[in-house]
Amino acid sequence: MSAAPVWSVDPRTGKQLEQVAVEATPQDVDAAVRAAHAARAALADRTTRIAFLRTAADLLDAAVAEVVETADAETALGAARLTGELARTTYQLRAFADAVEDGGYLDIRIDRPDPSLVPPRPELRRYKVPLGVTAVYAASNFPLAFSVPGGDTASALAAGCPVVVKAHPDHPATSELCASLLRRAAAEHGLPAGVLSVVHGFDAGLELVRHPLVAAAGFTGSVRGGRALFDAAAARPVPIPFHGELGSLNPVVVTPAAAAERAEEIGTGLAGSVTLGVGQFCVKPGLVLLPQGTDGDRVADHLAQAIGAAAPGVLLDQRMRAAFLTGVRERAALPGVEATRAPGPDGEHAVAPGFLSVPADRLTDPAYEVLLEECFGPVTVLARYAGQDEAGAVLARLAGNLSATLQLSAAETEGASGPAADLIGRVTALAGRVVVNGWPTGVAVAPAQHHGGPYPAATSHSTSVGGTAIERWLRPVAFQSVPEPLLPPELREANPLGLPRRVTP
Amino acid sequence: MSAAPVWSVDPRTGKQLEQVAVEATPQDVDAAVRAAHAARAALADRTTRIAFLRTAADLLDAAVAEVVETADAETALGAARLTGELARTTYQLRAFADAVEDGGYLDIRIDRPDPSLVPPRPELRRYKVPLGVTAVYAASNFPLAFSVPGGDTASALAAGCPVVVKAHPDHPATSELCASLLRRAAAEHGLPAGVLSVVHGFDAGLELVRHPLVAAAGFTGSVRGGRALFDAAAARPVPIPFHGELGSLNPVVVTPAAAAERAEEIGTGLAGSVTLGVGQFCVKPGLVLLPQGTDGDRVADHLAQAIGAAAPGVLLDQRMRAAFLTGVRERAALPGVEATRAPGPDGEHAVAPGFLSVPADRLTDPAYEVLLEECFGPVTVLARYAGQDEAGAVLARLAGNLSATLQLSAAETEGASGPAADLIGRVTALAGRVVVNGWPTGVAVAPAQHHGGPYPAATSHSTSVGGTAIERWLRPVAFQSVPEPLLPPELREANPLGLPRRVTP
Repeated sequence: MSAAPVWSVDPRTGKQLEQVAVEATPQDVDAAVRAAHAARAALADRTTRIAFLRTAADLLDAAVAEVVETADAETALGAARLTGELARTTYQLRAFADAVEDGGYLDIRIDRPDPSLVPPRPELRRYKVPLGVTAVYAASNFPLAFSVPGGDTASALAAGCPVVVKAHPDHPATSELCASLLRRAAAEHGLPAGVLSVVHGFDAGLELVRHPLVAAAGFTGSVRGGRALFDAAAARPVPIPFHGELGSLNPVVVTPAAAAERAEEIGTGLAGSVTLGVGQFCVKPGLVLLPQGTDGDRVADHLAQAIGAAAPGVLLDQRMRAAFLTGVRERAALPGVEATRAPGPDGEHAVAPGFLSVPADRLTDPAYEVLLEECFGPVTVLARYAGQDEAGAVLARLAGNLSATLQLSAAETEGASGPAADLIGRVTALAGRVVVNGWPTGVAVAPAQHHGGPYPAATSHSTSVGGTAIERWLRPVAFQSVPEPLLPPELREANPLGLPRRVTP
Repeated sequence: MSAAPVWSVDPRTGKQLEQVAVEATPQDVDAAVRAAHAARAALADRTTRIAFLRTAADLLDAAVAEVVETADAETALGAARLTGELARTTYQLRAFADAVEDGGYLDIRIDRPDPSLVPPRPELRRYKVPLGVTAVYAASNFPLAFSVPGGDTASALAAGCPVVVKAHPDHPATSELCASLLRRAAAEHGLPAGVLSVVHGFDAGLELVRHPLVAAAGFTGSVRGGRALFDAAAARPVPIPFHGELGSLNPVVVTPAAAAERAEEIGTGLAGSVTLGVGQFCVKPGLVLLPQGTDGDRVADHLAQAIGAAAPGVLLDQRMRAAFLTGVRERAALPGVEATRAPGPDGEHAVAPGFLSVPADRLTDPAYEVLLEECFGPVTVLARYAGQDEAGAVLARLAGNLSATLQLSAAETEGASGPAADLIGRVTALAGRVVVNGWPTGVAVAPAQHHGGPYPAATSHSTSVGGTAIERWLRPVAFQSVPEPLLPPELREANPLGLPRRVTP
């Protein structure tokens, strides 16, 4: 039996472009994991890792034309978006190189001995060591920033963990191209090719998370696929951490005062956020609590106008397009749902963006549960509410989210109590990031970023974007009364590497 | 049907002392969890939490006579050990109060906006919020420090999480007494009783981890019990973090040079560590790699002498005693295992400590797997090795451990390379704490402590002892462009609470 071919497909036409690879067999997965395992020692050197990550960024930047062309051909995301995504990706690689250089991520703590305590305190020195081979599951919607050279890979490599990426079937050619650039960067610094491998195929993904030498996994994708892998990771004889980002509704609450004050800005801004990347962002606002009445109507009118003027777009693949159109139809068919500007097909391959409306009180009815679930693509749902209690009742029904956004009036941003403060408290309980008077799309790569949140936004309490993402691939080790010459250099008294540390006298 | 009674039992006689409680019904568990959930808001105030933890420590200290008497009657651990354990427990409560006061655990990061980046960086302010109701599963072997008033409870309360403890059946009276003291402390600071509840019964423990309002769990116990609860936590519709400490062999490696140099000190020290608390420590050294030959023989002789002189002891309960004696017999029956000073019964309720010996090369044979598993109680296994390769081959077969200990000669502690450095590298890969020329028992409560390790030592990469234990009960939230008056006080620009923070300009 010959291995299944992996094709690059043009979503604008549905045509196969080229055969890029074949699906990995269990033997292929095993070989990739063993090569990664063998590369751990080489990757243990911090200086080499820093240089490797920076060269990887340089090589990707230098190949911008080829990378963007390849990615656009199989994702239809467009050159502008993909050029921006590549810049984000290389910024991220360099940011993690800087983080390794800084060394704060090692979280070094040193306790001097104190025999007066109960029990007596010996000398303790603690830092963090890499977990080992990391499996990364690439996302459909970010062929660069959340795929082969993306945040999971960059943070795992920065931590000292070799990576095996399970490529996403929507962009196999981009995956192979980026992998070859990363491996060229590795070779330039004397690192074995095994530090970064790519495997293709659904079954290969399951093999990977079950492999005894795989020590951790990162995932960005759907609730269904992510939960299956999470379950497999938890069911192993030796369970491993599975950092999955599975899905998010990203609620927005517009207060009556905000609607009265900024109807046009809110309606237009919402349209921009919903249609960005053809609605294929994990932080796309999928539910908007909008007041009933004329101010809310004005917001809806501006949204209708702006979203009506937005160009149709091509989704990442045919399956996704079919799921989107089915999802919209299912929601629109519910009694009481208005679909005056619902999304729909545009020709054979594109879709036109749109939105649905529903009285907010329906959303406390379990029959309307589907409206509280993510619908991937350019659609949002306006839930028209009659008062703060009604808005609160809807928020109370929501699962975990990556983000929650409040649109407030100028006056509401000035007081520390009242309905706005109450809303902040409510949405903090259900999201990993709270945005005021902005939009959740455009997740900054920054030290204080948090891109995660209560389940199903994430399967763990860590982030996949920002400085602390590196923490996912490390575990602490304490050294008790270990003589100076035998300590790892990071923990020596003289601090030869100049690392930040907290000392308890 | 009436609820099953929960008895306090004297392990020295096997006699029931008093009926302390009844097993919790599903309704009881639900009521405890709901009361805890309702207590979150009251516990959100940092100043109140600090005062509560300190008062709890004071009340426990003041009740030392009653606590020690109650615990000794149902655990047979002895007044000296229990007095020390109470001191450790109250030190821990105060240390977490100090940690809350310090605020470093909030890991506050503030990023100034930078529109020049791709994507542009808005203002981001990140800190950590409590997860919610925490389930704590008390350990058999520490009726105080790892039970109702122990590290999991103290760190969860410090984080702002109300706690429901599933008491251990070996010390229900101690559990109820400590709970009443903690609740009295809560009342003194106006906190509702729901911040700390205790439930009894195996089924109640399962109900607890499955309750939708429970947000996290901490566990100390066996691989079997812990894995069942871990699996239940992972299988929930909304999975929750399960921080379990399940079991550890705690290998010790004695080098030939160390055996030559300090045979008596090593043999005697080992006996002390193995028999401490009647061998009922999770960090009891369970496997000792000892060189073959006369120096190793001298270590074994001193061990035999010291362990022979150690008093018999009473294990925590009859089931544990039976499992210990069966475990020893099963190991001693393997061909090639020498059992010249094996542990055995002492009267009807006590056991005498001892050890077994085996040639190290047998341990690479799967038939000897059981010798690489924890045997809870006063026994250790000497694996006599012929050379470094043989010792390395045994280490390579070990699962994860809480600790690993090296006994080195003075000369070996002076060089950064050679066999000792190689050993440090090997044991760092398989343990959460590396000890040189000491013993793993007596886990200091300290900022740099790490009491965890690769599975099954722990089911997560966090610690259950030491300053960073509080991290288990928190999740980060980022606030993007949130106006100053609406920010939580911890994140305000003026820093009214004087908290440590990292600012990116």
